[in-house]
Amino acid sequence: MLEQLKQQVLAANLALPKYGLVTFTWGNVSGVDRASGLMVIKPSGVDYEGMGIDDMVVVDIVSGEVVEGKWKPSSDTETHRGLYLAFPHIGGIVHTHSRHATIWSQAGLDIPAWGTTHADYYYGNIPCTRLMTESEIQHDYEWKTGQVIIETFQQSHLDPDQMPAVLVHSHGPFAWGKDALDAVHNAVVLEEVAYMAIFTRQLSPQLSDMQQELLDKHYLRKHGANAYYGQ
Amino acid sequence: MLEQLKQQVLAANLALPKYGLVTFTWGNVSGVDRASGLMVIKPSGVDYEGMGIDDMVVVDIVSGEVVEGKWKPSSDTETHRGLYLAFPHIGGIVHTHSRHATIWSQAGLDIPAWGTTHADYYYGNIPCTRLMTESEIQHDYEWKTGQVIIETFQQSHLDPDQMPAVLVHSHGPFAWGKDALDAVHNAVVLEEVAYMAIFTRQLSPQLSDMQQELLDKHYLRKHGANAYYGQ
Amino acid sequence: MLEQLKQQVLAANLALPKYGLVTFTWGNVSGVDRASGLMVIKPSGVDYEGMGIDDMVVVDIVSGEVVEGKWKPSSDTETHRGLYLAFPHIGGIVHTHSRHATIWSQAGLDIPAWGTTHADYYYGNIPCTRLMTESEIQHDYEWKTGQVIIETFQQSHLDPDQMPAVLVHSHGPFAWGKDALDAVHNAVVLEEVAYMAIFTRQLSPQLSDMQQELLDKHYLRKHGANAYYGQ
Amino acid sequence: MLEQLKQQVLAANLALPKYGLVTFTWGNVSGVDRASGLMVIKPSGVDYEGMGIDDMVVVDIVSGEVVEGKWKPSSDTETHRGLYLAFPHIGGIVHTHSRHATIWSQAGLDIPAWGTTHADYYYGNIPCTRLMTESEIQHDYEWKTGQVIIETFQQSHLDPDQMPAVLVHSHGPFAWGKDALDAVHNAVVLEEVAYMAIFTRQLSPQLSDMQQELLDKHYLRKHGANAYYGQ
Repeated sequence: MLEQLKQQVLAANLALPKYGLVTFTWGNVSGVDRASGLMVIKPSGVDYEGMGIDDMVVVDIVSGEVVEGKWKPSSDTETHRGLYLAFPHIGGIVHTHSRHATIWSQAGLDIPAWGTTHADYYYGNIPCTRLMTESEIQHDYEWKTGQVIIETFQQSHLDPDQMPAVLVHSHGPFAWGKDALDAVHNAVVLEEVAYMAIFTRQLSPQLSDMQQELLDKHYLRKHGANAYYGQ
Repeated sequence: MLEQLKQQVLAANLALPKYGLVTFTWGNVSGVDRASGLMVIKPSGVDYEGMGIDDMVVVDIVSGEVVEGKWKPSSDTETHRGLYLAFPHIGGIVHTHSRHATIWSQAGLDIPAWGTTHADYYYGNIPCTRLMTESEIQHDYEWKTGQVIIETFQQSHLDPDQMPAVLVHSHGPFAWGKDALDAVHNAVVLEEVAYMAIFTRQLSPQLSDMQQELLDKHYLRKHGANAYYGQ
Repeated sequence: MLEQLKQQVLAANLALPKYGLVTFTWGNVSGVDRASGLMVIKPSGVDYEGMGIDDMVVVDIVSGEVVEGKWKPSSDTETHRGLYLAFPHIGGIVHTHSRHATIWSQAGLDIPAWGTTHADYYYGNIPCTRLMTESEIQHDYEWKTGQVIIETFQQSHLDPDQMPAVLVHSHGPFAWGKDALDAVHNAVVLEEVAYMAIFTRQLSPQLSDMQQELLDKHYLRKHGANAYYGQ
Repeated sequence: MLEQLKQQVLAANLALPKYGLVTFTWGNVSGVDRASGLMVIKPSGVDYEGMGIDDMVVVDIVSGEVVEGKWKPSSDTETHRGLYLAFPHIGGIVHTHSRHATIWSQAGLDIPAWGTTHADYYYGNIPCTRLMTESEIQHDYEWKTGQVIIETFQQSHLDPDQMPAVLVHSHGPFAWGKDALDAVHNAVVLEEVAYMAIFTRQLSPQLSDMQQELLDKHYLRKHGANAYYGQ
């Protein structure tokens, strides 16, 4: 069942330690099959070392029920599920506690668009969510985490296809993409721009956002109808 | 004698360089056998490279006497021993000079609870001890180091089972856990949250502690009677 | 055609990940054959892993036309080409988004000459270009990027042979040298001095430039007619 | 001739890249044979990769003349030679541009004694030399670099046996020890304490030096007649 998707989700999970994005099991990647409405996700609390294709868990994105798998799905499954339902074009999601993206999350700040590295992948500032209410934390916390992400995108009129990441306040980043591997790719970029933004701000504490026309140029030469770029 | 414990304490000591927590021999791990009242600890000044099970030293936690071993026990043995006596549920202790936890120790500051990475393991701010007195430094220094840690926990009404680490002022961290490997696990987390807290504070110098309800949620979903979490 | 040059340009491109200067394909190196007026450059968007000599692309530096190659040349080809035409002694160019040089670029600041590590390779502050105009960004952006670099050198009376790097504002560094491998060598040094300058400035925010006589001594003992130095 | 010393000096030079203290050939180690008055030092500008025992150069520390060797000795030979003549108990010297020690050198600041990691090896603040005069830079620069180091120790009444490193202003660190490998050991510690001091100061900008009694305790339990320590 969904062997190809499981294979990719496994590969994407194993890429997390390779890229230095996770300590221990602090991360998870999923991928979705839109035709069947099923997502494949990392099992809960299993080490990356020795993880195999049969450890992947299949979950129905509408009902939230486990359809196949010998383990419990990642505790963050409800957050992933909510995002797949709300963002119809995304095919993969990754959650990590990668150091520098998490630092911005802990500070509760958006990552400003301050250079072309950022603009090549993210079309504007990368948003940080609001604090969750006591009720949201206590009831269906993981589901509500996803709903607060969705609210952030709606209220700021952000397009998840052009802004493939978010910082959850006091927590850490989620990134996504057209599939599980693309989501990991975006998570690597997020960590890179998060690092650079910390020290860019140290050098220039009052720095304004980058020029809109430069942001447009870099984002649009890589994405959309007129893309032509490759370094 | 205590072969299984020795094997685990050896493995835990060898994990220190693997996780980048030590330079040279700047660290030591011990484990305790509560039934016999004996602890196993790294020998003093021996390189990690080539260290074997027969290099481990067995010490009586009540008398402090070496029961078995061809080397002297780590110079920090008296600190470990004091902690085992005062904190009855802990099974392993690790001391390192890991970079970022040591930086907070040198600055003499607690590490604030600023995110869920922290809250998943530490139930509140990670305390830094007070300065030691001239007398404490000059007489039974290593034993007194342990006593000042215990005093810190008593005066702040901290539960060592929910706060498995401390920063010794002007010195560096001690972490502990249910056994030697769990102590190393907590030391890795400590270093990670110490790193992130330095730069979280740089981004937001006046940041308040994280929401109590979020701290509760994350700590309690992983620890205690109703734990359910695994990433 | 130009087999030796292709071999060196390939080796120089593969050196980028080895030295930690690139993430994914975020960098490119070229080399020029002055006799024929042809440059060899990395193909566009191809992974370093598995890249071979036949993937290199040959471009005429006067016309900008591809003379040989099965791929499109790097999107930054027009910038490289402009620099070869304007700086007649350089033989290789490298562009990266290496973390710390990019941080200075994003902040829009020159890297001050603050020590002999810097002075051994760069004869003064490493300049950052001005912001590009909306028109420059929208029309022939990559070519104009090169022209703004050239303008920076002309207006500040900088000699590209003594200042083998530049920071492009809001973007990242270009470095060059007598050939492709020398350009990569200079890019490694640039990243090293960029890192050290960030934290030198943190320790001493109002630090003046290093002594002119020390800058002269270090640069001139390694470069020019009376060079004698080797560590 | 001096085969054992050459072997150790070679090993000590090869340890520099292993410990991450050097980029390219930016470092050199020497060792001295006090009986014959000869020092063995790294050759000038030769790569670490492939360096062998026959590449080492033997220099007379009194006359400064090369006694044996197929290469020129390191350009920093005159600095090493001066230190061997002035500091009679040291047996090995290392010079690097290691990142964080160099940052303090560039800022022209001593590294404060802020913790026991520091106190275990360095008995007080690690000094930075004064700026050199124009004349010192222009005439016998490398020899004068050593003389300014010696002046720093004399004017501050520092004992090179208890303070086995110095920061040369606007340049970088020299460290020494009882032999070449011990010098490298001290250079590793220097880099470690330099890193931690940068961020300790960030957390606590007005931090006073550590308690004198704690400095005494840690330095003296490892060094001198009553040493007993091993982690």
